[in-house]
Amino acid sequence: MSEMVLEAVYKEFFPFWEKISARDRDVICQNSHCVTYPKGKNIHDGSECSGVILVRSGSLRLYLMSDEGKDITLYRLHKGDMCMLSASCVIKAITFDVFIDAEEDSTCCVIGGPAFAAVSERNPEVRIFALETAVNRFSDVMWVMQQILFMSMDKRLAIFLYDESVRTGSDMIALTHGQIARYMGSAREVVSRMLKYFASEGIVEVSRGGVTILDREGLRRLTL
Amino acid sequence: MSEMVLEAVYKEFFPFWEKISARDRDVICQNSHCVTYPKGKNIHDGSECSGVILVRSGSLRLYLMSDEGKDITLYRLHKGDMCMLSASCVIKAITFDVFIDAEEDSTCCVIGGPAFAAVSERNPEVRIFALETAVNRFSDVMWVMQQILFMSMDKRLAIFLYDESVRTGSDMIALTHGQIARYMGSAREVVSRMLKYFASEGIVEVSRGGVTILDREGLRRLTL
Repeated sequence: MSEMVLEAVYKEFFPFWEKISARDRDVICQNSHCVTYPKGKNIHDGSECSGVILVRSGSLRLYLMSDEGKDITLYRLHKGDMCMLSASCVIKAITFDVFIDAEEDSTCCVIGGPAFAAVSERNPEVRIFALETAVNRFSDVMWVMQQILFMSMDKRLAIFLYDESVRTGSDMIALTHGQIARYMGSAREVVSRMLKYFASEGIVEVSRGGVTILDREGLRRLTL
Repeated sequence: MSEMVLEAVYKEFFPFWEKISARDRDVICQNSHCVTYPKGKNIHDGSECSGVILVRSGSLRLYLMSDEGKDITLYRLHKGDMCMLSASCVIKAITFDVFIDAEEDSTCCVIGGPAFAAVSERNPEVRIFALETAVNRFSDVMWVMQQILFMSMDKRLAIFLYDESVRTGSDMIALTHGQIARYMGSAREVVSRMLKYFASEGIVEVSRGGVTILDREGLRRLTL
């Protein structure tokens, strides 16, 4: 991608873009690369500072993973979203490791961590932007945590299916029970059992390809 | 507390103190009050902006609470620690509610949220300090989340007992099983069962007053 196109992208997504010097804008552009990750690709495994990631298309999934390979979704990033948790060298206070996968073919611009850190050292507004982006995600993660810890499984599954159908604009959720369980940080057996219950209530229909919502209003009531 | 004493306290704990104007220092001091909360007192229940809390002595416990009253400890604040999560009017990105209780008699200085927000609007270094304080806690919370989601109960309990004995400088943990369970976000029955197992291994002794560590090295091995 040419530097002019990159400038236009950053101008759109970074509120600080016009407030920093032409030299600093240059530092960011020259330390950027844009790349398309194929669906399923692991982009970041927490072991190093992968840089600041800006999603231009597609979607990324951030998750935690245990030593035994159990994973739990924290949140997803879509077009225009920015990831600071992949840049632990920019925000020193972030001492935990997350994993990031491309959930679909996803085009991203990645800014090298040290370059972004240097610019943020010189420009308080960049530092504030980076920290605010991180704190916003703090709120998302707390929401997930409360769901997992406190909420009953039927409600959680209903919310997941409802949100997913809103997000994709379709009543058909093309995910296996195992995939749904993984997104929810639950077990496949638990999800299958609950889907069977939803199906018996006429709320969804379960097929080989996924889950189809039959009674949208009924599902919505379960989310309340 | 006189304004001069307050100035000295803030000078010690706020890295930005000397960088902001005398007028802004005044705004903070004039909107502060220092108070001693008795042990067990609920200080913040998430419903409003209680302000920025600086702990001068004692300790505070931050936790999440479900509608059904189930609670889970996020972290504790000790002398010199600062709480930004109680000041949602300062950091707008924080949209979740936490509860805060005094765990012992605790003396705190509380700065009114709107006053601190006004000063942070005018001073990027104050804003950065507030955000960094919040992001630091993000890392703590992720740690708790990983423990709860991924770690086996024996390891979690061993870590809790070990940390607690280091913190208090004593081999005697003066907490009931119910209290330990609450700190760990677990059930009393689970903690009691596991303590019984630890006792059968000669690692701890369980008495009416709490838990005494007998085999420090054995306990430490369980934390690995």
